[in-house]
Amino acid sequence: MSTPPTRRRTASHEVSAALLRAAETVLDRDGSDGVTVRAVAEAAEVSPTSVYNRFRSKDGLTVALAVRTLARLGEIVDVPAGPEPRERLRQSCRNYRDFALRHPARYALIFGTGSPLEDQSSEAAESGRAVFTVLKGLIGDVAPELDDGELPEAAQTVWAALHGSVTIEQAGIGQTPDADATFEHMLDCLIQGVTAS
Amino acid sequence: MSTPPTRRRTASHEVSAALLRAAETVLDRDGSDGVTVRAVAEAAEVSPTSVYNRFRSKDGLTVALAVRTLARLGEIVDVPAGPEPRERLRQSCRNYRDFALRHPARYALIFGTGSPLEDQSSEAAESGRAVFTVLKGLIGDVAPELDDGELPEAAQTVWAALHGSVTIEQAGIGQTPDADATFEHMLDCLIQGVTAS
Repeated sequence: MSTPPTRRRTASHEVSAALLRAAETVLDRDGSDGVTVRAVAEAAEVSPTSVYNRFRSKDGLTVALAVRTLARLGEIVDVPAGPEPRERLRQSCRNYRDFALRHPARYALIFGTGSPLEDQSSEAAESGRAVFTVLKGLIGDVAPELDDGELPEAAQTVWAALHGSVTIEQAGIGQTPDADATFEHMLDCLIQGVTAS
Repeated sequence: MSTPPTRRRTASHEVSAALLRAAETVLDRDGSDGVTVRAVAEAAEVSPTSVYNRFRSKDGLTVALAVRTLARLGEIVDVPAGPEPRERLRQSCRNYRDFALRHPARYALIFGTGSPLEDQSSEAAESGRAVFTVLKGLIGDVAPELDDGELPEAAQTVWAALHGSVTIEQAGIGQTPDADATFEHMLDCLIQGVTAS
């Protein structure tokens, strides 16, 4: 009763953050299907009720994990301004690839089948749109001639190529010998395609 | 004993084809995980032993289904010569997209996580290379200036974009309002990128 409200809110926030970190550990270890209220409670060494009180369900956990993952992805693709715009876009795309290859389960959660982003009204979809906005900004700097209708199309094309590229690489089914070189070639091609139209 | 050998081979081939059709029905209904020797036997109304004798295991079924699926994909992307090369490539890409959207489980089997194509020595990987060869041929006609080193890179880029595009569409997470228009825009961008380098 004597604890100041701000301190109580901080403490509650910290508990949520700890549960989310535990959920992420479960996700990395067992994939999306493994992220259940029970498994997260076990990993966090709390009661299932504690997890349930904060995230309600497996779906609640999934959305919270997607928001967290997309926030992190948004940070790493938002390469600080400074380099020449094309080089900045390239670095952003390289960061995207690194993230996907380092965290395949998190990546599959946000962009694979059953992604919570499919529900356009979810908080996760909002986080997805924020990452897309970063990508649009980077491409807009590379191709300032694109109008408001063309820019989202160009960004969607770049995203599709990135997504296809990293999921092909994750599945180990690429048809070229050097994935690094192929990725750089793809970036050449995309930048040519985006700026030539 | 009196049946001529050719006829016996045909009959055996027909049984295998019937089992494979049953396996495909199970795949379309239940996804890759559902394709078990038992489920296929049930669907084909034969004993599990009959399935086992021809395909050995779930893995054997998966490889056979992948070979069948890739053969079909290879046919539909191999648009007959005649149209202008760029239009031929575009039609091929549209056919690829249609196939993926119509048969999501088959598509995930060949190009999703756990794809049998990962094993480069498998018959499925050989079928995958055959489809890639078709794509290289189409792109080579559009961009005859590409040398033997550049052509596979260009084809891999086009494939990555196609794969990313259709899996984003399957997951329902695209960021543009009109998937048909976005796909056409992507084809513009890819052809520009492939020919401008």
